[in-house]
Amino acid sequence: MLGILLGTLALHLPGVQTGVNRLDSVKLLFTATSAICITGLTVSDLGDGFTRFGQIIVIVLAQIGGLGIVTFGTLVAMLAGRKVNFTERQLLREQISALNVGGAVSLLRIILLYTLVGELAGAALLALRFVPQFGLGDGLYYALFHSVSAFNNAGFVVMPGGMSQYVQDPLVSLVIALQIILGGLGFLVQLNVLTHWQDPRRNRLLIYSKLTLSTTAFLLVTGTVVYLALEWANPGTLGPLQPAGKVLAAFFQSVTPRSGGFAPLNTEALVSGSLFLTMALMFVGANSGSTGGGIKTSTFAILMGSAWNLISGRTDLIAFGRRIVPENVVRAGTITAIYTLLVSGAFFALLVTNPKLDFTHLLFETISAAATVGLSMNTTSQINDPGLLILTVLMYLGRIGPVTFAVAINARRTNKSLIDYPPERDILVG
Amino acid sequence: MLGILLGTLALHLPGVQTGVNRLDSVKLLFTATSAICITGLTVSDLGDGFTRFGQIIVIVLAQIGGLGIVTFGTLVAMLAGRKVNFTERQLLREQISALNVGGAVSLLRIILLYTLVGELAGAALLALRFVPQFGLGDGLYYALFHSVSAFNNAGFVVMPGGMSQYVQDPLVSLVIALQIILGGLGFLVQLNVLTHWQDPRRNRLLIYSKLTLSTTAFLLVTGTVVYLALEWANPGTLGPLQPAGKVLAAFFQSVTPRSGGFAPLNTEALVSGSLFLTMALMFVGANSGSTGGGIKTSTFAILMGSAWNLISGRTDLIAFGRRIVPENVVRAGTITAIYTLLVSGAFFALLVTNPKLDFTHLLFETISAAATVGLSMNTTSQINDPGLLILTVLMYLGRIGPVTFAVAINARRTNKSLIDYPPERDILVG
Ligand SMILES: [K+]
Ligand SMILES: [K+]
Repeated sequence: MLGILLGTLALHLPGVQTGVNRLDSVKLLFTATSAICITGLTVSDLGDGFTRFGQIIVIVLAQIGGLGIVTFGTLVAMLAGRKVNFTERQLLREQISALNVGGAVSLLRIILLYTLVGELAGAALLALRFVPQFGLGDGLYYALFHSVSAFNNAGFVVMPGGMSQYVQDPLVSLVIALQIILGGLGFLVQLNVLTHWQDPRRNRLLIYSKLTLSTTAFLLVTGTVVYLALEWANPGTLGPLQPAGKVLAAFFQSVTPRSGGFAPLNTEALVSGSLFLTMALMFVGANSGSTGGGIKTSTFAILMGSAWNLISGRTDLIAFGRRIVPENVVRAGTITAIYTLLVSGAFFALLVTNPKLDFTHLLFETISAAATVGLSMNTTSQINDPGLLILTVLMYLGRIGPVTFAVAINARRTNKSLIDYPPERDILVG
Repeated sequence: MLGILLGTLALHLPGVQTGVNRLDSVKLLFTATSAICITGLTVSDLGDGFTRFGQIIVIVLAQIGGLGIVTFGTLVAMLAGRKVNFTERQLLREQISALNVGGAVSLLRIILLYTLVGELAGAALLALRFVPQFGLGDGLYYALFHSVSAFNNAGFVVMPGGMSQYVQDPLVSLVIALQIILGGLGFLVQLNVLTHWQDPRRNRLLIYSKLTLSTTAFLLVTGTVVYLALEWANPGTLGPLQPAGKVLAAFFQSVTPRSGGFAPLNTEALVSGSLFLTMALMFVGANSGSTGGGIKTSTFAILMGSAWNLISGRTDLIAFGRRIVPENVVRAGTITAIYTLLVSGAFFALLVTNPKLDFTHLLFETISAAATVGLSMNTTSQINDPGLLILTVLMYLGRIGPVTFAVAINARRTNKSLIDYPPERDILVG
């Protein structure tokens, strides 16, 4: 919250904007929130409207936001003293002990090192393409900017011509897609996979890792196949590309809703089936504690599993030989309900404040903001200031998660009702 | 299922169609399904395209459908031998004993009597308006047809000029609105209220009744206020009406998504905020075991309660001094997930088969079909045959409910997994 305020102030400094499409205070607040929350939505093109100085402020805010989430998501478990439903702490301790890390400071050092290595490696690979194209200075700047933007799942783009010019370029596409995927998996799962790979017998692969890795793979493959089928002949998207380029672009398009925000194809030109798929993928999002948003892959997997259970008449929810406890199913349903309410409320408020804008465009924009994806049907610049303020709040709540928000509010309240009410089973549900 | 086949065959009889906009077999199948499932969607205007004979077949199918649901929803509890999560049976027994009804046959007699009285009373009141307007024969026919259509929440309209001509007429509007509300409450709740009213000490008002009555009231009041605010000056809807007429029309518009299907206002002319509200109200729907569809008011109330609990840091879900058991929360979340999947899948299939049609129009149509509401943005006639078949399946699944469908499929399977898997708590959800 403080970061958003300071970021907004920083963007008010002279020399931030070029003068093209000058932004007022509400739009600067929106941009700072979009950066800190690593959403990536922008009212005007960052490449045109912001100077290098302004762009660097934005990417630094995104770096702070991304680092904050990874660190917070990992540290909260170690430091928190209060009880939570899930044993994030225990899960983490197991991993940290495997790395022989004693305290929070050592862990922070590892996270910083991991970020630095990931971003520099990405920048080096991107530089192979960008330096020949833009010259040494600009090439390195673009390589570093977009590597940081991708590694933190921010989705800001500043280069002339945008990201879609590399839609058939395997180097740029795959580097950025990989960074988005890793960011969406989150530090915990990557750490678990790494330690498991080093010593499979001492470090078991957690059920949580298996669940989220398989869900992510399922979403990636399904998305790629469906985009390929629906957009194959669309002249506005995959139509003009070579077959290999079509596959690459469909894969990238399937990666970006989880929640990269780089648009390999013109979102507005997608057929309506692809638009809906993109909204659904954005809504599901990435892993808990990662730089991605949405209801999270584990929530989605548990709901799908429960649905299948109810349909097939089973009572226990089994995943990889373990029974998922009912508390987690309740949590998955409740979180999805809260998330749906949040998105619905914001969408309704946007419709009322911007009655002239298209229903589908605003729905897409709302989900993109809530899930901190940053894809847009080129709508952001048409939304009025009240609408931008609604999206600002939504990006913030979507980023910190409705539950974190709730826990923060209620940290001081009692957790259990004092009266022991008699149970009620006589409710017809559904 | 058999009813749909026989209904479709009956609609193939000579003399059913007038010749205006002749329907092919797929469209007749769609119409028969719409009637049996009391959805009310029609490909072409029933008043123009169907003869009186054809209209009577449609309304008889709707009567069979409506009676089937009330009877089935009430009888299944008495006759079913297998265990279900909720104690529908016990709930019902209590009520039936209050009425001194011994068996299924007596109960059936009561339901038939209740239907007959409700429909005749409605028809008598509607006749006060329709006989002066259309003459004795036509007036009585229209009164009876629309009373049956409203009492069963079917939503079919055959009179010239449609239902919107009575938007400022308190008699017609209130009679039809009342029939929709009662139909959406369902037989069980009405029975409970009636017996409670007769003898409050012997027959307690069930928690289920309190929960669904208060949720229904909340949805009605909220809907009326929001429609009034958003549509007040809209020249296509409330704009031209007198203030009293505006209130009446906003109230009717708030009743019809639960799931009457009569359109007091031109749905296509609603502002986008009202459209979204209508979609949300249709999605929530009416009570379990009623002639209404949707995820049901109790499911909605439980999800809202759980969401509020998670936000306010409470663990027990309390309603009217009772603790709702976690099984019901799991069920509410799972049913909503299944319903969302069903709607999403059908919507995606519609988008792919009808790529030229508008995203918002098709979304509205899909929710309307799934929740058996029957409101439309005048889209039904533009949907191609594959799309109509998708909606036919959706109306059927939406009507019988995904869970009933699942239970029917799995009646013979074992209910409990044989292996006792170890529990898994280490899942990050949300
Ligand atoms: K993003
Ligand atoms: K209906």
